[in-house]
Amino acid sequence: MAPQLDSFFKQVDAMSESFIDRLSKAVAIPSVSAMDEHRPDVFKMGEFMASELRNLGAEVTLHPLGKQPHKEHLELPPVVTARYGSDPSKRTVLVYGHYDVQPALMEDGWATKPFKLTVDESSGRMYGRGSTDDKGPVLGWLNAIEAHKKAGVEFPVNLLMCFEGMEEYGSEGLDEFIMREAKGFFKDADAVCISDNYWLGTEKPCLTYGLRGCNYYSLEVTGPGADLHSGVFGGTAHEPMTDLVRIMSSLVDPDGKILIDGIDEMVAPITDQEKALYKDIAFTMDNLYESLGSKTALFDDKARTLMGRWRFPSLSLHGIEGAFSAPGAKTVIPAKVIGKFSIRTVPDMESEAVTAAVQKHVDKVFAGLKSKNKCTLKLQHDGKWWVASPNHWNFTAAAKAVEHVWGVKPDLTREGGSIPVTLTFEEATGKNVLLLPMGSSTDGAHSINEKLDRRNYIEGIKLLGAYLHYVAEEPMREG
Amino acid sequence: MAPQLDSFFKQVDAMSESFIDRLSKAVAIPSVSAMDEHRPDVFKMGEFMASELRNLGAEVTLHPLGKQPHKEHLELPPVVTARYGSDPSKRTVLVYGHYDVQPALMEDGWATKPFKLTVDESSGRMYGRGSTDDKGPVLGWLNAIEAHKKAGVEFPVNLLMCFEGMEEYGSEGLDEFIMREAKGFFKDADAVCISDNYWLGTEKPCLTYGLRGCNYYSLEVTGPGADLHSGVFGGTAHEPMTDLVRIMSSLVDPDGKILIDGIDEMVAPITDQEKALYKDIAFTMDNLYESLGSKTALFDDKARTLMGRWRFPSLSLHGIEGAFSAPGAKTVIPAKVIGKFSIRTVPDMESEAVTAAVQKHVDKVFAGLKSKNKCTLKLQHDGKWWVASPNHWNFTAAAKAVEHVWGVKPDLTREGGSIPVTLTFEEATGKNVLLLPMGSSTDGAHSINEKLDRRNYIEGIKLLGAYLHYVAEEPMREG
Ligand SMILES: [Zn+2]
Ligand SMILES: [Zn+2]
Ligand SMILES: [Zn+2]
Ligand SMILES: [Zn+2]
Repeated sequence: MAPQLDSFFKQVDAMSESFIDRLSKAVAIPSVSAMDEHRPDVFKMGEFMASELRNLGAEVTLHPLGKQPHKEHLELPPVVTARYGSDPSKRTVLVYGHYDVQPALMEDGWATKPFKLTVDESSGRMYGRGSTDDKGPVLGWLNAIEAHKKAGVEFPVNLLMCFEGMEEYGSEGLDEFIMREAKGFFKDADAVCISDNYWLGTEKPCLTYGLRGCNYYSLEVTGPGADLHSGVFGGTAHEPMTDLVRIMSSLVDPDGKILIDGIDEMVAPITDQEKALYKDIAFTMDNLYESLGSKTALFDDKARTLMGRWRFPSLSLHGIEGAFSAPGAKTVIPAKVIGKFSIRTVPDMESEAVTAAVQKHVDKVFAGLKSKNKCTLKLQHDGKWWVASPNHWNFTAAAKAVEHVWGVKPDLTREGGSIPVTLTFEEATGKNVLLLPMGSSTDGAHSINEKLDRRNYIEGIKLLGAYLHYVAEEPMREG
Repeated sequence: MAPQLDSFFKQVDAMSESFIDRLSKAVAIPSVSAMDEHRPDVFKMGEFMASELRNLGAEVTLHPLGKQPHKEHLELPPVVTARYGSDPSKRTVLVYGHYDVQPALMEDGWATKPFKLTVDESSGRMYGRGSTDDKGPVLGWLNAIEAHKKAGVEFPVNLLMCFEGMEEYGSEGLDEFIMREAKGFFKDADAVCISDNYWLGTEKPCLTYGLRGCNYYSLEVTGPGADLHSGVFGGTAHEPMTDLVRIMSSLVDPDGKILIDGIDEMVAPITDQEKALYKDIAFTMDNLYESLGSKTALFDDKARTLMGRWRFPSLSLHGIEGAFSAPGAKTVIPAKVIGKFSIRTVPDMESEAVTAAVQKHVDKVFAGLKSKNKCTLKLQHDGKWWVASPNHWNFTAAAKAVEHVWGVKPDLTREGGSIPVTLTFEEATGKNVLLLPMGSSTDGAHSINEKLDRRNYIEGIKLLGAYLHYVAEEPMREG
């Protein structure tokens, strides 16, 4: 039987101006984690979260994380945890979000002040840094609690909240904290929900059940003791750049096909069931062209494009460190050049096996060059792919909530990028993790003029509440 | 009959401390043409030159060159010209040098203050920015005049001097000035001598009769409207970097062989006479390894190495603009990347023909990629190669002067780099141009701890004077 949500929904509508006001207050705190001078604002934002949560009756703890590695003059902002309810007869849901934001400056090209929430009444767009990433979704949980209280509706679950302040700067210290609290604060969690991604388009909600991983490599070629003048040494010395571009060009072809032996074989085969999923997904080639800003797509059909983004590996060449990279002309032979490339990984690729294949390929190609230079491959960092079962009760409950709030079944999507904390929570709790986005594809999370649509915010608050109600009564099925 | 030079030489030795003092005064003026804040010092250095020249009795003119292109708030420093003697029965020699210097900062790693001439008495090394490039040689001409006057020796030629203040920043305005004065200040010149390069090694003087040219290209590949995130777009879009490294890697192989059709055919064949020249030249593979700081040489024999530097073209890949070039990791797909490469040119390569061959090659390779991106080749700048006849009387006179001063026949060398003004003087005057170096290969012209050996300075002054005496009486032979 579907939960009764009408009075909660009415309360959300009635309180919508006060919820927007709460978002205004949050956006006004420039909690930019990447900029030293804004560190006090990140702390201020953490205290704002703590104070709002206490006012709602949650048990709040601020967890200090110590000094920031490599920036020892800076204290890391605290992880704010809060527990709302501890009824052993109820399920316990763990939610995560972040209260820090990307940098934003007027001179980057913002049309409005980035740290003032500016609501365009005709379009319903609410502009401001952090509006959609991730202050809107984070406050969504608080707003859902408040609306339940005001409406006198019993809260359906015990809610564990975990909000960090360093997400936009590598989530320093978070993994260790989560693993430490796995048997502590997080131990009762029955399911996990993260609201920190976006719809695939602008009209249809989605649930996200997969992310690609990323292995990031640097490939160094060295020869001479110092940079050389190409007039004096061109034609007499092995040039590191010549070797490096040879190796880089051997990794991937212009059609995006990875040319490293053994990689294809690691990729899980496509099932008929999976194939059938793509056709219904609300996504068109025009959506891709618009976000690319060009028609330079590798494929001209939707299914192959979505597979290229979600379920196949890809290899991108990012650039070269140590070579001449400024405008103009410089006649240098760089002595030491470092090519940067990364491979987006998918099931069932294992990081070690990928690196072994890359190393073997690089060794073979470099040996073929017969150069006197030296070549070294290094894995800079890796993050594993993540795929959850969309048939798990956590997902089926969320799907029902979407249909209740938005009147449509959500698309089940994966993403090409990575949200490393997803995997950490899965590993720490051993529970299913759901990505439940609030904003849409045009929100511009890390760009100028970031916004959240009023509709997505208000209906999103309803969705988060409804999700908890459906989770409370969904029959347990692991997928 | 050899000219009588003893009393001139004795006078140079007697005045050597005052000549070093003159160099100290010049080095103390930080006439860095590339730095806006030092522009007044460049002017000051021009006035120092003018005043010293006037004191010697030369007719001096300061030629303003107007505003600096692209830096309209800066006035270009003047070209200082001076005429010493106007006896129609004497030959007229035109000499060129520059009174500006490269930037130099203590924090770059200088062991002594760069703008204080520091003489190490035991080694005879005189450290200071501009000591060898090009204040030592420039003052050499002035010192030679002064020693003649003091010794009461008649000056053997009419001397036209041309000293500029922007050489280290592209010789802005100089070409136009030279062409303008071709039939003016420069019209009487019978021969040209430039002292702004270096011995091939440290022990044996040389005369330089050839330089390679340089065609510098940028190769732009564009696709998406803006930089993309490789997580979201990797595997769905043609990546400009993938195309660019393919094209760059097709230009030259790891052994330095240029892979562009038609280039080899443009290169003048090697004659037996030329082949015979290399074996006697004072240069060893160890010299190369030392200057490379490694043993990553393309060839292991001297002759092929010198040919690789002087008489064959070479192609160097300098870097990529627009890609990720910083340390660390960034998962960007750059939207617009510009590869920089240049070809050192030699007789009989013509710039237009080279560019046509490069364009044809790039078009063919890019078409083969079947990419939807766009690719554009641009010639950023070109400078022609230069080869003079070492049998010309200007050279044979200089060779006799070297033998007189240093007791050895000079090596006849070419250089891999370019000194564009050489060609301009040749074209403007129609006369033979000689490159007559004062400093040696270890002087570190554009590096930290630039120095000029005391011996090279003092014997160099004798050489410049002796050269003028031999030029005065050398039978005219065009080579
Ligand atoms: Zn976020
Ligand atoms: Zn973000
Ligand atoms: Zn110079
Ligand atoms: Zn120089």
